[in-house]
Parts: sequence; structure tokens; C-alpha cells
Amino acid sequence: MEYESDYDLLKEKIDACIASGSIEEGKEIFSTYHSVDIDEVLEDLDTTDLQYFLFMLDPEDIASLIENAEDELQVRMSRFYSTKELIDVFSYMSNADVADLLGLLPTKKRKDILNYMKKSDSNILQMILSYDEDSAAGVMTTEFLSLKQSLTVREALLKIKEIAPTTEIIESIFITDNLHRLQGIVDLREILVAPGFKPLAELVEEHPFFVYADQDQEDAANLIYKYDLKYLPVVNKNEAILGVITSDDIIEVMEQEHNEDILAIGGVSKDEEFDSNFLHSVKSRLPWLIINLFTAFMASAVVSMFETTISQVVALAAAMPIVTGMGGNAGNQALSIVLTSLARDEINLQDDLPLILKEIGLGVFNGAVIGFFAGIVLYLKYHNIYLGFIIFAAMILNMVIAGIVGFLLPLIFDKLHIDPAISSPIFLTTFTDVCGFFIFLGLASTLLNKLI
Amino acid sequence: MEYESDYDLLKEKIDACIASGSIEEGKEIFSTYHSVDIDEVLEDLDTTDLQYFLFMLDPEDIASLIENAEDELQVRMSRFYSTKELIDVFSYMSNADVADLLGLLPTKKRKDILNYMKKSDSNILQMILSYDEDSAAGVMTTEFLSLKQSLTVREALLKIKEIAPTTEIIESIFITDNLHRLQGIVDLREILVAPGFKPLAELVEEHPFFVYADQDQEDAANLIYKYDLKYLPVVNKNEAILGVITSDDIIEVMEQEHNEDILAIGGVSKDEEFDSNFLHSVKSRLPWLIINLFTAFMASAVVSMFETTISQVVALAAAMPIVTGMGGNAGNQALSIVLTSLARDEINLQDDLPLILKEIGLGVFNGAVIGFFAGIVLYLKYHNIYLGFIIFAAMILNMVIAGIVGFLLPLIFDKLHIDPAISSPIFLTTFTDVCGFFIFLGLASTLLNKLI
Repeated sequence: MEYESDYDLLKEKIDACIASGSIEEGKEIFSTYHSVDIDEVLEDLDTTDLQYFLFMLDPEDIASLIENAEDELQVRMSRFYSTKELIDVFSYMSNADVADLLGLLPTKKRKDILNYMKKSDSNILQMILSYDEDSAAGVMTTEFLSLKQSLTVREALLKIKEIAPTTEIIESIFITDNLHRLQGIVDLREILVAPGFKPLAELVEEHPFFVYADQDQEDAANLIYKYDLKYLPVVNKNEAILGVITSDDIIEVMEQEHNEDILAIGGVSKDEEFDSNFLHSVKSRLPWLIINLFTAFMASAVVSMFETTISQVVALAAAMPIVTGMGGNAGNQALSIVLTSLARDEINLQDDLPLILKEIGLGVFNGAVIGFFAGIVLYLKYHNIYLGFIIFAAMILNMVIAGIVGFLLPLIFDKLHIDPAISSPIFLTTFTDVCGFFIFLGLASTLLNKLI
Repeated sequence: MEYESDYDLLKEKIDACIASGSIEEGKEIFSTYHSVDIDEVLEDLDTTDLQYFLFMLDPEDIASLIENAEDELQVRMSRFYSTKELIDVFSYMSNADVADLLGLLPTKKRKDILNYMKKSDSNILQMILSYDEDSAAGVMTTEFLSLKQSLTVREALLKIKEIAPTTEIIESIFITDNLHRLQGIVDLREILVAPGFKPLAELVEEHPFFVYADQDQEDAANLIYKYDLKYLPVVNKNEAILGVITSDDIIEVMEQEHNEDILAIGGVSKDEEFDSNFLHSVKSRLPWLIINLFTAFMASAVVSMFETTISQVVALAAAMPIVTGMGGNAGNQALSIVLTSLARDEINLQDDLPLILKEIGLGVFNGAVIGFFAGIVLYLKYHNIYLGFIIFAAMILNMVIAGIVGFLLPLIFDKLHIDPAISSPIFLTTFTDVCGFFIFLGLASTLLNKLI
């Protein structure tokens, strides 16, 4: 990469630029750094400095900074500009990016801007804004080429030369009937080499994939991923084409879903970042810890039930975390397999329920191997064969339960439209802890006279 | 979506097609189903049926099946064809896909194929094969348009019409000097509307991003994600352009890395699928459980050290899993934040070490809140204020340790080039368990006379 991207150096340059007030220094920064990196420094500036820096820039650079900024910075930046100035900046941005920003602004300012705009622009923006942010319409681009199938190649080429400079996609041209319903796609290459009098209808190739505008962006991501699509048309309920999702739009969606999954499994709210402030992190983590505390008490209550047994055979206190810990590990293994398969829409409760037999088998087999080792160690340490046998049996039983619960929970949550990555881990641990303590200490109580 | 995708129905149709041997039925299947879905059925066919079905298809359909198949099916399919037939099929595939398949074949067959091919094709394939499968070169496309900057717009347009039908990318044309070094990009739109006599050099826009062919594919994915790039040129060590990575190539890479992370955190090897067979799953999961067993024994040994204390105050046995469990949860929160930030290259050990202070603060604050609740409950249950105080203090200490370890471990592993998602969780749990038991039971032993 030939751009500079060092944060500290860039921070120095921006500070110097603010101190000198030199417009040339501002230009210089934009020629050596990418807006993504400049935004990282701007995030940390106070309001006066930020405003001062922005006032040295032209609308095109401001547009580029807004497009690449996080939500919070976008809102901060937009406060410095009048409605008229913002509309000027918007002319350098894609409709999708403008709609994202408008969605963040107070209702009054949003209405002002939409009223002030060209009717054709505000119609498109209002259409995008009428859909949910996480819907297919929320990630689509509206800057694509769509032509009627009745045009000839020559007519098409003239249209393309006229419209192309303002479109995001040119290599595929979307062909519609008179009601704007998608008939297929023509590759720009075909138009470049075909004879001028040929009607587009003869060059159309079927494009059998589309999503409805109100479908979840994850559905769109799954289709693009599974079928390796470059473009996925988005249609309204009359099947008229509204926009197109490109594979690079979907990268952002996938990265977002990915991080949400990892954070959910770890018990952190999805908006926490590594550099979030202290209060934000507390709000993100403490509620989850409190929920976990309740489940920890449930497990602890099970142990309490067996306090008399433990007081007679204190070795049980040392051995019991092995049973619950290993159950938790085995359950997490099943869980992570199901979560990744769910993310790709490959598994569901109806069709794949028989696979639970494999999980039960794995619980028996792995539980027996692990339980055998654990049993031997306990026998060697405490010279009691029954203690060894109890941990062997408890390990198998708890791992079978762990496998069943780790396999079923995410599938059930998914069926109930609850995010399985958020809900499954906590329930799983509760099950493996409560069952693990109960089985192990219960067996020990039953065989108490053999253990003393 | 207008394609059919029902597995059972497709399986019936393919079985019927094999039974009847009708080439028309085969064609019919390809017009209603996507190769991705057909491959899913083919995976489950036995060799005779698979061969019989494939022999009804033309090379173009076979190419499409191979391109979309998993590695195992690709190899099974390729065995049915002679060198000559395979080269015929390859003519419908991209170089990147052919290289992927060649990489899976036995050395002798690969050499045969390369010898038999047109020299120009085998040179490109050998270049791709000389790089690691997970390198930037392993995911790039070689079907892009590259033109010398000395050409005029008219000359360029003629070249484009000639070469375009065989390229994957046309909307950006990569402009090089005489040594094939990238000078910049020209947008096809510019060429379409510019006067014919203009030299390309006047239309070139800088493209400041590239990767070296032997860089990891993850580096390429990170650049494309961070800077929202459509195309990322891949160059050799002389900076001559070898290929281009497109955003849709990177979707596959990101999905793969994503799943590897979730599976690693769950303690499963990265090649296990939800429908892997029993033996495969045992091999994927048992080694990890055995490693975990050792760490469980370490924690158990700590408890053993305090058996006399526990035998005198058996309530400790019920309370101690609360301390270790909550420590594990708090550590996982810090860990998951760092893992997602590492995946996006946003955090590193040198620059972000001061953030450890926030983790310590969070440990103190969240530990105090959780420890306070836990202390109250223990006090109400056992009517001993010291027991309440011990769990309060132990909770704070263990959560501070959990925060530090959850924050540092992944950064240290990353610095040592060890996958932090695989290694961190197990070490983290060991720390929080061993420290949790030791702190809680240690404090209890010190204050033993107050507890009895």
C-alpha cells in the first residue's frame, strides 16, 4: 500500500494544519492519507478543532470523510453545516450513504433536507428510508443501470454513455419490462461487441436470484455467499427493481454479523469496541454478568443440597469441578458447530434432528475416554475404586446431556427467531453445571457408604 | 429466488435421470437448479451413479459443477476424466478455479495436465501454483484487463472489445508501464466517453493499494474491508501486476476465517462440519477435551490443597464455583472484544497496552457489584458476615485477573503468530479457575476461625 496510515504522524499533521489554518496543508493530508484513516484522528478531536479543520475542506473531501465515518462522527460532522451545505456535500455521496446519514439525523432536520432537495433525489431517499436499516433495501445501491428490453444495442450504448458516470455498477445492465420488472441481465461486454441494430431482448441472460426489499440483509448475504453472486437485485412487492446489492456491500454485513456472533458468545453487547469508554463497557458487560450470577447461584444451590455428603467425603469438592468443566467444554463444541452451520443456513431443526444421535454417541464415547482417565487419576489419588467409577459414570452422563443441549438449544432458539449466539451459551452452562453437580454428587450420595 | 433448491426433490430428479439415462432430463435439471445445489446431491451419490450422471453432461455443465464443489467432490469428479477431457472442461473455468483443482490432484496427473496445455495457460497456472493456497495469489483472478499507458482511447477500446469476453473484471482497466508495473486504474466509463485520440495516460487515476503475491489472504481481506475496495491488485516482488483480488473473492475468505474463529473458540478443529461422520468428529473434539482435562486437574489440585478447610466449612464447596464461574465469564468478555478487534487489525500489543487499565478498572467495578450481591446472598444463607466479605474480595481479585488475562493473552499470542482464537480460551479458563479457587479458599483458610 502506498498510502500513509500511521495514526500518530497523521495526528501531528492535522494538529499542525489546524494551528496554521493552511488550506494547502489540508489538501496535502488528503493526498497522502485515506479518509478512513483521517476519520480515526477526527474522532478524537474536540468540537472546536474538528469544526476548524472541516471548514478548510471542500465539499468533495467532506463527503468522503462522512462516507467513511462511524455513526457518531457522522452526526457530529453534520451539525456544522446548514441544510443547503449538506445537500451540496450529498451530491458527492451515493444515495445509500446519504440515506444512512439522514437516518441518524433528528426528524426535523431530515425533513428540511428532503424538502430542499431535487424531487427525484428525495423520492429515492424516502423510498430507502421507508425500509428498515437492516433490510436488503438498507444495503442496496440505487445507482445501477436499468434499461427497457425494447431498446437496440445502439440506443443502449447512447444511454449508457449518458448515465454511466453517475452509476456504481456498469458491467451488468439490468433489463426490465414496461412495469420495471426484472427480465434479466445483459453484460456490458455483449453490448460493446454486438451489432448496433440488435435488440437488447436478444442478449438478455436470465438472472434467477433476487430478494424483496424488506427481507433481512442476512438473507441477501447468505444468497450472495452461497451462490457466489456479484449482484443481487432488490425488488418491491410488485417485483419492480428498486436497487442492487453488490458483493462489496455484503462484506460489511458479514463482518458485522461475524463480530456480533463472537461478542454474543463472549457475553458482550454488540456495540462495544476495544476502545469504548469505561461507562460504555460497564453497561455492555455488567447486565450479562448479573444474569450469569443467577445461574451460578442455581449451580451453587445444587451443591448445597449435598453439603452433608461433601462434609463426609471432602474429596468430592475437589473432583466435582472436573465433571462440570468438562461438560461445559463438550457442550460448547457441539454448540459452535451448530452456530457456524446456522449462520450459513445449512442446518435446521426439522431436517437435521437425527444428527442428535451422533451427539449422543460422541457424548458416550468422549465421556467414556475422559471419564476413564479422570477415574484412574482419582483412584490413584484417593485409593477408592468407587470414586473412580462415580466420576466415570457422571462424566458420560453429563457429556451426553451437554451434547444434546449444545446441539438442540441453538436450533430451538433459531426456530423461535431468537439469536442463538446470544442465548445458547448461558443456558448451556447452566445445564452442564446444574446437571453435572447433581449427577456426580447424587451418585456419590447413593454410594456414600462405599466412599467413607 | 426463482431457482428451485429443495434437496429431496432434486435428489429424486437426479435418481430418475440416472435410471432413465436421458440427456434431456439432465439438461432440464441444470435449467431449474443451480450447480451449488446439484453438487449437494452429487456429494451423497455413490461412485457408479456419480459417474453415470456426469457422463450425460457437456463440458460446460461439468465445469460449473466442479467450480462450485467442495474439495472432496472435485477430486472424485476429476478421476472420471482423461487429461484431454479435463483440459476441455478447464476451458470453461477461471484460472483461479483450475489452479485450486490442480492443487488437489496427484503430482503426476497435475504435471501431465500442465504439459498438455497451451503454454500460455500453463505458465499462468504454474505461477499461481507456486504460491501458497492461503496467500493473496491463491485467491486472485488472473482474468483482468491490463493495458499500457501509451495507448490511445481508440486503441484501448479495440483491445477491450477483443479481450473483454474472456476477462472477469472489465469496469476497471489496470494501466501499466513497459515493465508491467501498475501505474493506476482507468474506469471503463471514462474510456467510453473520452475522445478517441486521447492517450490513456491522461485518464489514469492513482490506485494506492496493492498486496504482494505471497502475503496472507487475510491481509488482503483486511485492506479490502477497511478501505471498502472493489479491486486489490496483486504484484510480485518486482511490483509487476500478476492478478487482482475482487471483493467477491474475499467473501469466501472472510466466511472461512469467521467460521474458524467460532470453531476455535468452541474447541473444535476447523474442518469439522455439522454433518461430519462420527470418527471425524471424535478426532476433531477428543484431543481438545484431553487438553482441557489436564487444566481441570490443575484447578482440582488447588481445591485439594484446601480439603481440611472445606471439611470444616462445607459451605465453601457450594460457594467456590460462583467465584471461578464469574471469573471465567468476565475474562471471556474481555477476550471476545480483543479477538474481534484483532480480526480487523485494529489493536496491537505496543499501542494499546494502556487499555489494560480500563480492564483492571472494569474488574474492580464489576467485581465489586457482583461480589456485593454474592456476599449478601451468602450472608443471608449462612449468617456469617466474614463469608460474605471473603466472596466479595475474591470476586474483585479474580475479575481483575480475568480482565488482565483475557485482554493480554490474545495480544501476546497474536504477537507470537499463534492463532489467539485457538489458544486463548483454554489458558484463560485455567487462569480464572486456578486463581479463583486459590484466592477464595486461601482467604477462607486465613480467616478460618471467623468462619467456624
